[in-house]
Amino acid sequence: MIWFVNATTQPCILLYHISLLIFIIVQSLMCSSLTFLDGESSHQHGGGGYRIVQWEWSYVQTPYIIASWLLVASVAKILFHFSQRFTTAVPESCMLILLGLVLGAVVLIASKKQPYQLDPGLFFLFLLPTIVGDAGYFMPARLFFDNLGAILMYAVVGTLWNAFCTGFCLYGVKMAGVIDEKVNAGLMDFLLFGALISAVDPVAVIAVFEEVHVNETLFIIVFGESLLNDAVTVVLYKVYISFVEVGPGNVYTADYFKGIASFLIVSIGGTLVGLIFAIILAFVTRFTKNVRIIEPLFIFLLVYLAYLTAELFSLSAILSMTFCGIGCNKYVEANISQKSRTTVKYTMKTLASIAETIIFIFLGISAVDKSKWAWDTGLVVSTLIFILVFRAVGVAGQTWFLNWFRLVPLEKIDQVVMSYGGLRGAVAFALVVLLDKEHVKAKDYFVATTIVVVFFTVMFQGLTIKPLVKWLKVPRSTNRKPTINEEIHERAFDHILTAVEDIAGLNGYHHWRDKWEQFDKNYLSKLLLRKSVYHKSELWEAYQKINIRDAISVIDQVKVFVRENGSGVCLDLQVIDTVPGAKIEEDLETHHVLVENLYKPRRQYQSHYSRHFMTVGEKERQDREVFQRNMHNRLESFKSTRYKRHKKDRRSCHTEDCSNGY
Amino acid sequence: MIWFVNATTQPCILLYHISLLIFIIVQSLMCSSLTFLDGESSHQHGGGGYRIVQWEWSYVQTPYIIASWLLVASVAKILFHFSQRFTTAVPESCMLILLGLVLGAVVLIASKKQPYQLDPGLFFLFLLPTIVGDAGYFMPARLFFDNLGAILMYAVVGTLWNAFCTGFCLYGVKMAGVIDEKVNAGLMDFLLFGALISAVDPVAVIAVFEEVHVNETLFIIVFGESLLNDAVTVVLYKVYISFVEVGPGNVYTADYFKGIASFLIVSIGGTLVGLIFAIILAFVTRFTKNVRIIEPLFIFLLVYLAYLTAELFSLSAILSMTFCGIGCNKYVEANISQKSRTTVKYTMKTLASIAETIIFIFLGISAVDKSKWAWDTGLVVSTLIFILVFRAVGVAGQTWFLNWFRLVPLEKIDQVVMSYGGLRGAVAFALVVLLDKEHVKAKDYFVATTIVVVFFTVMFQGLTIKPLVKWLKVPRSTNRKPTINEEIHERAFDHILTAVEDIAGLNGYHHWRDKWEQFDKNYLSKLLLRKSVYHKSELWEAYQKINIRDAISVIDQVKVFVRENGSGVCLDLQVIDTVPGAKIEEDLETHHVLVENLYKPRRQYQSHYSRHFMTVGEKERQDREVFQRNMHNRLESFKSTRYKRHKKDRRSCHTEDCSNGY
Repeated sequence: MIWFVNATTQPCILLYHISLLIFIIVQSLMCSSLTFLDGESSHQHGGGGYRIVQWEWSYVQTPYIIASWLLVASVAKILFHFSQRFTTAVPESCMLILLGLVLGAVVLIASKKQPYQLDPGLFFLFLLPTIVGDAGYFMPARLFFDNLGAILMYAVVGTLWNAFCTGFCLYGVKMAGVIDEKVNAGLMDFLLFGALISAVDPVAVIAVFEEVHVNETLFIIVFGESLLNDAVTVVLYKVYISFVEVGPGNVYTADYFKGIASFLIVSIGGTLVGLIFAIILAFVTRFTKNVRIIEPLFIFLLVYLAYLTAELFSLSAILSMTFCGIGCNKYVEANISQKSRTTVKYTMKTLASIAETIIFIFLGISAVDKSKWAWDTGLVVSTLIFILVFRAVGVAGQTWFLNWFRLVPLEKIDQVVMSYGGLRGAVAFALVVLLDKEHVKAKDYFVATTIVVVFFTVMFQGLTIKPLVKWLKVPRSTNRKPTINEEIHERAFDHILTAVEDIAGLNGYHHWRDKWEQFDKNYLSKLLLRKSVYHKSELWEAYQKINIRDAISVIDQVKVFVRENGSGVCLDLQVIDTVPGAKIEEDLETHHVLVENLYKPRRQYQSHYSRHFMTVGEKERQDREVFQRNMHNRLESFKSTRYKRHKKDRRSCHTEDCSNGY
Repeated sequence: MIWFVNATTQPCILLYHISLLIFIIVQSLMCSSLTFLDGESSHQHGGGGYRIVQWEWSYVQTPYIIASWLLVASVAKILFHFSQRFTTAVPESCMLILLGLVLGAVVLIASKKQPYQLDPGLFFLFLLPTIVGDAGYFMPARLFFDNLGAILMYAVVGTLWNAFCTGFCLYGVKMAGVIDEKVNAGLMDFLLFGALISAVDPVAVIAVFEEVHVNETLFIIVFGESLLNDAVTVVLYKVYISFVEVGPGNVYTADYFKGIASFLIVSIGGTLVGLIFAIILAFVTRFTKNVRIIEPLFIFLLVYLAYLTAELFSLSAILSMTFCGIGCNKYVEANISQKSRTTVKYTMKTLASIAETIIFIFLGISAVDKSKWAWDTGLVVSTLIFILVFRAVGVAGQTWFLNWFRLVPLEKIDQVVMSYGGLRGAVAFALVVLLDKEHVKAKDYFVATTIVVVFFTVMFQGLTIKPLVKWLKVPRSTNRKPTINEEIHERAFDHILTAVEDIAGLNGYHHWRDKWEQFDKNYLSKLLLRKSVYHKSELWEAYQKINIRDAISVIDQVKVFVRENGSGVCLDLQVIDTVPGAKIEEDLETHHVLVENLYKPRRQYQSHYSRHFMTVGEKERQDREVFQRNMHNRLESFKSTRYKRHKKDRRSCHTEDCSNGY
């Protein structure tokens, strides 16, 4: 561990000590608890003879362990971000995996066995949906649909290509004797393994790409692929599992067709479930005006139910949740209140962030437990080589094909980043852990290989992709919202292109998007948006936003101005505040400002203690007074300093004036 | 049910249909699931021969049921608030219990058994902490500590009085033959029952009193009592249970002393645990500057862990959580960002609100299942009479005693409201369900009686307390924050009273509060507040707040002004927007405003897609331009309409001017 401590900065060493301390305390509390959600806490407040203080561990066990884990994750996050220089160089995911490795080793040494594992149930039902929900809800819809063709291509064709090639080649290598004899696996097993190891992982992609900031198109293609390949992975995985279970001899041609049908049902079904929930969600948020407080919860619930419902019918849950998020976002955001928006955004990001943290920590912890896996160098090395090679070949081939149709072709460097950014992650790990050892004899070898692949892609590729992107000079993301001007031009172009397509007699992408927008405007928005929102103009809102920000900056400037020139009668504040010292100065200053700016003591807005409403008090007369007073002050100061110059040249001097740093 | 449908308005009928529909759908999905948290979902993605679509109920069961219940509760809440006239007359808690009764009846008829019950584990570990956490965190600390004496008196002496009197009198009534022979209970059983039925319930008190709006002092006394009597209830309950279990003959004198010692440990220990967590929480939030996103989660986690840790050591969890909330609030709120504050507030209130909803629905549902309880009219009626009478007598006696010491005595009408507001609720119900039927033979009778008492207090008293308060002309809450002026005076009075106490040679309440404030200022705040926050003046912040609100109102007025008089060049917007109709008018108007107010196309602030930070873009030069432009416009309009009048009488005309509705 020496190399590691040397590589970290001071706060990070502190980090480990504190985290370990917390973890050991938590650990010592946990005694005999083995699994995460083993439910059924004994609901008894203790029994037997009367003791003054009792130890009720079994009663609080489940929530206590969960809360403790969340706490460990949060503390780890807080400590990571102490040193900003460090966090910009090393991706958080790497640090978390390392932390997991350390924690896992500590627990293993302390208790001789590893009670914690990345449980697939926990992962698929709780951790993954949080991350996918966040990703789907805040997905840039326009960008996503504009690149839908490429995304689908990579997600379907690319994943199939990777899966088959990896599977067949591993089998070939096995036949050639590179893989040891003890790895007891046939063609089906290798195809199964190929299927689960070949899918790009959304969690890993978000975690790494978010810190790299490549341009949006590149990001959306890799990220969209990682989300949409879920359907392919799920179907391949299930088909192979059933094939392995019935034995390769009993597979008939009909089963292959069933597999293809299954793919269509899983993907389209998942998407439909998501869209249905999106419509329900958007529709209900029309009617929450009186219970704003319920809005965020309602959104979480329905998006989550979209995931669960798809899971219930064994459809693609990730697709369902993604499309629920994309579908509802526009209407929901317009319907709910500003505070609800903040809460939704903040809570979603918090939950996703913490889920990600837990996943990576658990990945680290799971790797430590040697009883769960078996090592074969041939398998590990050939898998690593195959996934890297086939990913690169696949991307190159598909991009060549796609560039025939794309207006803006994907460059060579884009392809390098896409190949290199094909990270594998927790989904593959959870799937491999789910395998049944009775049917898949080589499970332990597959587990070890998956761990290595995940670690290699997340840690090595994750660490090096940033320098690579810099070195290749990949266009970075500009990270800004489109301006109103750009938006207007974009819309104009859309219409022009639609017209062009119309004239050329084509029913292309722009034609259908135009049709969709008409439909949305005429029917969907009417159904799903509040009346008050429906009639509001977006431009108007933008103007209002700018104005409010502007107003706040006015206030700030007046404040600074007054603060600098403050003078007036000084009441003796010592009567009020008995503590002398540095604070007095502050208070004096405050006092001056108040004396100059406030007219007479006034009441604040009424505020209300209620759990059901969040009322903002009514406007009162007193406000007007403040307004007038301040307006007057501003007028005076404004007039004396700027007025004459303004008068002279009303139009042209604005810009220069600004740059003078008014 | 006829009377009930007649009493409701149209939306409420709609409500029932929709809720029932949802519930029946959910119900039909649930098939064989019996308990809420029976954990251990089978983590397998199905097995056996390959089928295209599989039904994975057992896999998603647990989260699906929980999410569905939350959904039912949210929908119920949304529907209740459709009709505001209705909701102001009938407390939500009553409606929810009725809904629960209906749902329970439907489920019972549909499935012949009642799978849902208010599970004490669920209640104590998840629902109650949400409500207590919200109550504690947003507790008005000053008001609470100012009335701490009275609160403690009612919580300890009052609860003991109620418990003993009810227990002994029920035993007496049993001896007198009023209660049927089949109720097989001795003195200890009745004392146990008296203990659990006599505690005022925080959930019920919040639910009802929040809608009544009595004055703060009255509210804080009843509410504080309901929180702080938890220690008494827990200890009495546990002591009696152990007595009942070992048999009344085996109880020795030492056990009684143990009971008293236990009370001290449970209450003081709980409080200490809470305060320790409060300090940890406040301290950690000093260091979250780089990971704002984690702040809300961190707060929830630590407040919840305070509850669980107290529960773990069988201390008073409610006390722990309350004091954790009260203790950390001041420092945490100052340390975290504005968005985190909004999220914490919103999320806490959402969760508390939904937990309350679920509790009341479950109370209704639980009542329907006849297999769980047995009826005895004598027991029910005498219990009801005893708790009402002893509550009234207890309150009167204690208030008489307290009024010797109180500066502002509690009036007769206050006492009536306090007696009448002694609501019993879900805590009593959960405790009675927890009883072991082997030891407490009469459990079923106690369950029935508790249900009746809870329903009577929540429904009948809850419905009538509002008219009663009106009729008695109880001083209502003014619902406003203290003005700066009031705050300053309050502080001055505090110091004066401290001085008076000092001169009189007393070490009274004011003396100690002053000492505490000194300590807080010199040590605690330095330890627990960020440096930047510690040096900030509160007055300064208040001023800034007023100013920003004021600025926004300036903007609003300018906007309205411009909107009314808008005119200018009109570009043809049809090029941009192809849909003609009513929207055009809006767009035109917007366009005019923009043409008049915007100088040139400008960029919005940069915004950032990142899960770890919520960066607000930097200020840009362009802002200054907007500022200048708007300032200028305002100046012009202001000058032309108001300037001369202002000049004439700069000071005195402000107030009149305001009332003219500027």
